[in-house]
Amino acid sequence: MSEEIAVIEGDGIGQEVIPAAVEVLDAIAETDASVGPFEYVAADAGDAVAAETGEALPDETYELAANADATLFGAAGETAADVILPLREAVGSFVNVRPARAYPGVDAVRPETDVVFLRENTEGVYAGHEDRLSDDLSTLTRVVTSTGSRRLAEYACEFVADGRGPDHRDGFTVAHKANVMRETDGRFREEVLAVADEHGIEADEELMDAFATKLPLDPSQYGVVVCPNLAGDVLSDLAAGLVGGLGLLPSANVGADNGLFEPVHGSAPDIAGEGVANPTAAILSAAMLLEHLGYAEAADRVRDSVESVLADGPRTGDLGGSATTAEMTDAIVDGL
Amino acid sequence: MSEEIAVIEGDGIGQEVIPAAVEVLDAIAETDASVGPFEYVAADAGDAVAAETGEALPDETYELAANADATLFGAAGETAADVILPLREAVGSFVNVRPARAYPGVDAVRPETDVVFLRENTEGVYAGHEDRLSDDLSTLTRVVTSTGSRRLAEYACEFVADGRGPDHRDGFTVAHKANVMRETDGRFREEVLAVADEHGIEADEELMDAFATKLPLDPSQYGVVVCPNLAGDVLSDLAAGLVGGLGLLPSANVGADNGLFEPVHGSAPDIAGEGVANPTAAILSAAMLLEHLGYAEAADRVRDSVESVLADGPRTGDLGGSATTAEMTDAIVDGL
Ligand SMILES: CC(C)[C@H](C(=O)O)[C@@H](O)C(=O)O
Ligand SMILES: CC(C)[C@H](C(=O)O)[C@@H](O)C(=O)O
Repeated sequence: MSEEIAVIEGDGIGQEVIPAAVEVLDAIAETDASVGPFEYVAADAGDAVAAETGEALPDETYELAANADATLFGAAGETAADVILPLREAVGSFVNVRPARAYPGVDAVRPETDVVFLRENTEGVYAGHEDRLSDDLSTLTRVVTSTGSRRLAEYACEFVADGRGPDHRDGFTVAHKANVMRETDGRFREEVLAVADEHGIEADEELMDAFATKLPLDPSQYGVVVCPNLAGDVLSDLAAGLVGGLGLLPSANVGADNGLFEPVHGSAPDIAGEGVANPTAAILSAAMLLEHLGYAEAADRVRDSVESVLADGPRTGDLGGSATTAEMTDAIVDGL
Repeated sequence: MSEEIAVIEGDGIGQEVIPAAVEVLDAIAETDASVGPFEYVAADAGDAVAAETGEALPDETYELAANADATLFGAAGETAADVILPLREAVGSFVNVRPARAYPGVDAVRPETDVVFLRENTEGVYAGHEDRLSDDLSTLTRVVTSTGSRRLAEYACEFVADGRGPDHRDGFTVAHKANVMRETDGRFREEVLAVADEHGIEADEELMDAFATKLPLDPSQYGVVVCPNLAGDVLSDLAAGLVGGLGLLPSANVGADNGLFEPVHGSAPDIAGEGVANPTAAILSAAMLLEHLGYAEAADRVRDSVESVLADGPRTGDLGGSATTAEMTDAIVDGL
């Protein structure tokens, strides 16, 4: 039986980097009999389909993602939130896994950075109950449950116990703002620390503002970082700035048995259509997809090849090179 | 008539750096007949007074701050939020001004950093309506008003028009998360941009997560940054990490005619009592106090002296030197 992979390129460079990621998946499936076969099913989402149909995320696309074994998503433009937030829901994702590491050969503000953010993916301000109470006043209801916090913490403990965190740090750090959001982040913090304790996993904590100061000063003190939704969004994007930008960063939206894999970068309209987008983030997202489907060794092959190409292979303009997307992708495929 | 300055040292190194700041104020008042005289009134706040009386912020301290011409605050330990949030309210502060710049002679991750955050100081998640709705569920009501957003924006426009922003950038940037918090940050964003437009001030915008990526990659593209409350907290602390840490960063909580001035750093229990704390942030906070009282020239004298000492004077351990708080303070006083 083949595994069904939903492929949603979306807008802009999504249409260039997702084909590159599929090429890598194909090369893996061809050279490793234990992997696949994969059946790719394409679907639309983003600004272009919204302009045509009025819907940034057509029902068919939602259903496809909900029922696939895994989904590869590129990027969306103006409609990003209308696409990605429902897609995360479609795959039942409760954690957004965001590794941010620097690579030898790539300029980084902080080359020692090697952190993995585990971001709560359903609650916080993203739960999205907003009201316009008067001409002057709007409110948003931020939501934190023990169920959601514990589910994330269980995942974090397993992640750490499986040795999937960076080598330089045991356990994990929980980042929050419980000194101000005492009831909501207080609940989050308490549940996450309690679950760590139950599993005998070392956990320390940091206020999210203090974390934002300390990460640039000394990234080596952090490994796995567990955060509420918006904190995880902002702090992982900060880490992206320290490792050289969004062109390198993959992410996984993990659900109970489904997953959505996407580069952290956006649709980059300024360079879209020119064939020069950096495929690394999409290809590393495909590696996370392979890992999710149980092909850990294949995932490592992809990562190793990406690493060698970043170290001394052809590179795209954002990395100071002049390679096209195709040239860089070919080099990664050749190096598998 | 003398001007009354409430002096709240608080806990830990607050008791070392605030006296240093008062020494500098005294030296200014003595050498500049147009400044002062100042009458200092001391009051307690923080962990120590909480342990004694059960109240981290005694009523007398609140009243003193509310009625003084300006308040100088050091730091509080565990009780920081119980002290600083009501104190901001006591002085009627609606904007938290947080300059973050690197200095020649001080190691910085990003030496080009020179930004001023104008943080909304009354609303957002800090408005603090939290509820425990069930054993599983807690909520927080985030609050944004047009009144609060416009008041901050008016301040920002005046700030920019008065040339108080960094020289390298015109206008200001508004950082928000209106793609997710559409109603609340949508209101904030819209009102701030509208006020800028009314005043003919150039304003651009950035999603707060994108801002967190871009600031470390290229801080020179930003000058004045206008933010909702929590965004301002986190993003300004990020900037602190880029300029070398919290030891250098002053802040002003500005109200209609009152103000509370505090270093961004905390009580640093690890080094408290040893006389080695870096007095720079407190002394620069005193400079902001002078500016607030209308003594712009005196404020510049303080800043210039701090800058020379940072460039080649005695410095404390956090800056790689071995000077005591007293030695560094003396050098700054001598250089006035
Ligand atoms: C597009 C936006 C809704 C999204 C988010 O805030 O989660 C993005 O920033 C991300 O992190 O994937
Ligand atoms: C102590 C805490 C409540 C405070 C805040 O979040 O505002 C601090 O982080 C600050 O920025 O002054």
